[in-house]
Amino acid sequence: MSILRPLPERLLLGPGPSNAHPDVLEAMSRPLLGHLDPDFIALLDRVKEGLREAFGTQNAMTLPLSATGSAGMEAALVNLLEPGDPVVIGVNGVFGGRMAEVARRAGAQVHTVEAPWGSTLEVSAMADAIERVRPRVVGFVHAETSTGVCQPVDEIARAARDAGALVVLDCVTSLAGRPVCLDEWGIDAAYSGTQKCLSCPPGLSPVSFSERAIAVARERDVPVQSWFLDLSLLAGYYAGEDTGSGAKRVYHHTAPISAIYGLAAGLDRVFDEGLPARFARHTAAADRLVQGLDPLGFEPLVAVADRLPMLTSVRLPESVRRLGEAVVRTRLLDEFGIEVGAGLGPLAGEIWRIGLMGENARPEPVDRLLEALRKILS
Amino acid sequence: MSILRPLPERLLLGPGPSNAHPDVLEAMSRPLLGHLDPDFIALLDRVKEGLREAFGTQNAMTLPLSATGSAGMEAALVNLLEPGDPVVIGVNGVFGGRMAEVARRAGAQVHTVEAPWGSTLEVSAMADAIERVRPRVVGFVHAETSTGVCQPVDEIARAARDAGALVVLDCVTSLAGRPVCLDEWGIDAAYSGTQKCLSCPPGLSPVSFSERAIAVARERDVPVQSWFLDLSLLAGYYAGEDTGSGAKRVYHHTAPISAIYGLAAGLDRVFDEGLPARFARHTAAADRLVQGLDPLGFEPLVAVADRLPMLTSVRLPESVRRLGEAVVRTRLLDEFGIEVGAGLGPLAGEIWRIGLMGENARPEPVDRLLEALRKILS
Repeated sequence: MSILRPLPERLLLGPGPSNAHPDVLEAMSRPLLGHLDPDFIALLDRVKEGLREAFGTQNAMTLPLSATGSAGMEAALVNLLEPGDPVVIGVNGVFGGRMAEVARRAGAQVHTVEAPWGSTLEVSAMADAIERVRPRVVGFVHAETSTGVCQPVDEIARAARDAGALVVLDCVTSLAGRPVCLDEWGIDAAYSGTQKCLSCPPGLSPVSFSERAIAVARERDVPVQSWFLDLSLLAGYYAGEDTGSGAKRVYHHTAPISAIYGLAAGLDRVFDEGLPARFARHTAAADRLVQGLDPLGFEPLVAVADRLPMLTSVRLPESVRRLGEAVVRTRLLDEFGIEVGAGLGPLAGEIWRIGLMGENARPEPVDRLLEALRKILS
Repeated sequence: MSILRPLPERLLLGPGPSNAHPDVLEAMSRPLLGHLDPDFIALLDRVKEGLREAFGTQNAMTLPLSATGSAGMEAALVNLLEPGDPVVIGVNGVFGGRMAEVARRAGAQVHTVEAPWGSTLEVSAMADAIERVRPRVVGFVHAETSTGVCQPVDEIARAARDAGALVVLDCVTSLAGRPVCLDEWGIDAAYSGTQKCLSCPPGLSPVSFSERAIAVARERDVPVQSWFLDLSLLAGYYAGEDTGSGAKRVYHHTAPISAIYGLAAGLDRVFDEGLPARFARHTAAADRLVQGLDPLGFEPLVAVADRLPMLTSVRLPESVRRLGEAVVRTRLLDEFGIEVGAGLGPLAGEIWRIGLMGENARPEPVDRLLEALRKILS
C-alpha cells in the first residue's frame, strides 16, 4: 500500500499556494548538490541577487529562509526585539494579528493599532501611536492575505523612522505581484513566501534585513530566542558575495536544496517576463475577475483604491449563501478542480478569497472560474 | 542571464544531504495541491502513519515539521521547557552542544554532561546528573552526526523517566538507517531530518511527541516562545486521523506541499524495502567502507561497538595530511564528483565524515569512493 498515490490536478485560486510553473517543478526534480558545494553556493548567491531585485533593495542580508512565511515573520521580529521593548503593530487582518502575537511571545510590549478588516490602517493613527509609544519596532502588513487590502507603506514607514524605530513589513503576498521597494520605503526587515506570486511551492521565506537592522541585532543584550532564526548565525552561511568557493561558508543548518532550485527557476520566470509586465498582468487579471463576478452578485470587500491585484476578496451573494458557501467551494473543487479560499476570522462565511497569483494571473484561469460558477449558480 | 543553470552530478557521501531517490525527485515535480485540499490532507495522514512506523511509535502527534532538523530540535525543546526549568543535556559532539544552546535560549537552566567527541555518553554520568538536578527535560543525541557515534538510549531514558523527566532524543541521522524505537525506549520528543537515511531533499524535520509531552505543553504557564513551532497550534492543522475531509484542519502555516510529496515517495521506498533489510544494508555498506579504507591508512574514530553504520568518521592518514585534507576533498569533488564531509569543531582537519545514507548505502558508492581515493593518494 503506497503512501504517495495519484493526485488530482487543481487550479489553485485560493490565497496560496498558487500553481507552480512547470519550469519550477522541473527544477525541483534535479539531483541534489551538497549545501556547501561551490556550485550550490554560487546558485544561492544568484538567488539572493534575484531576491534583492524583487524586494527593491541592496540589502546584503537578503536570503531564502528555510521555512515558510510565518517563520520569516518570526525571524524578522525575534532578531530585532528584546524583552520589554515597546512595539507598534498595525492590525487589520489575520496577519497583523499574528505579528502582534509573535512580538508578544518575544517578550515585547505590544501596542496594536486596529483598523476594520477590509480597510487600510490609518496613517494618522499609526503616527500617533508611534509618537506616543516611541517603539523600537513598527510592524505592519503590505498585502493582507486575509482581506485583500494593499497598505500604502511610505508614510507609516517614514513616521516610524523619524521616531527612530525599525520598520518590519509583511510582503508575503505582494512580492513579485506588485511593486515592493524596501530601500525607497525605508524598510528594515521584510519577509515573503514562495507560494504566492513567485509561483513556487511553499517552503521558503524570502527575507531581507537592512544594515541598520543587522547592527541592532548585533548589539543585543540577550541572545535571539531562536537559534534556528538567529540572524548572526544565518549570516555565517548565507552572507558574503559569490567567492567561487564554498569554503568560507559556515554550516548552520542544511539548506533545502531542491526548494532553492525551484525558487531559482521561479525567479528566472519573473525576470524573463520583467517585473513591470508581471505587475500589469496581475492588475489586468484582477480587473477581469471583478468585472466577471459582478453579474453573479459577488461584491468586492475592499474599496477599489485599496485592493490587492493578486488577491480579491468578495462578499458572497445570496445564491451562494443559499447553497452554503462551503458546499459551493467543495463543488468547485470536486466538479471543476478549482480551489478558492474561505474567509478567516470575522470574515469566515462572509467572503471568499480568490487568488490570481503568479502564473495564474491570466485570463484563462479567470474565465474557467467564472464559467464554473455560472454552472453551479444557474 | 539565468539564475538556475546546469548543475553537476554529485555522489553525496558527506553527513547529509544524501542523494535523493529518483522516485522522490519525480514526486517533487508533481503539480501542487492546496494545503487544505482533502486529497492533500489524506496524503499527509499517510505520511504521518509512515513516520510513526519509522520512529517506532504510536504517537498521534508525529508529523513532518515545515523546516530542517535544527528547527525540529528547537520545536522539541521550546515546547517542553519554560524559563528556569532545569535540564540535563548530554554533549559529545556538535549536536548535543546545539541542544544545550537551544535550551539556554529557551531560558532553561542547562546542566551538561560531557563525553569526549567520538565516545558515547556514560550512563552513570547521565544518571548521576539526573539524580542531582531533577530536570524537567533530559536531552541527548542518538546518532551524533559530528562524530559518527551511536548512543545506547534505553538506560539513560529509563533513568530520566524514573526521575520524572521528559526525554528528548535527536534522531536526525539514525531514522530509517538503524532501529529507532521511541515507544520501547520511552522517548517523549524526537526529531529527525529528511536528507539522511530517508534519501529525500533537506527541508523537513519529522518530529514525534508523546501524550505525556503534549500534556506538559498544554499545561504551560507561559506561551511557547515560538509561534511557528507551537505544538498546540501545529495540532490544529496536523492532528487527527484521516477523516476523508480537510474541513476539520485549521490553517496555521502553509505546509510545504512538494517536500511532503517527496517524503511520501521516500517512505514508500523505505517500506517497499522493509526496515530490517534497510538497516542490514546500511551495516553492510559501512563494513565494506571501513575494510576498504584500512589499507589506505584511514582509521575509524569510533570504537567498533559504538559506530553508526550510516556515518563513518575516520582519522586521516599521513598521505592525506601531506596533500592537505581540504585539497583532497576538493579533488574528490572536482575530479570524481564525490562529496565527503570535513570534521567539525575540535575534529576539523583531523577526520572526515563519510556518509552512506539511504540510497547510497550500497557497494557501488563505496567502491567508487575507494577507487577515487586510491587514484588521488597513489
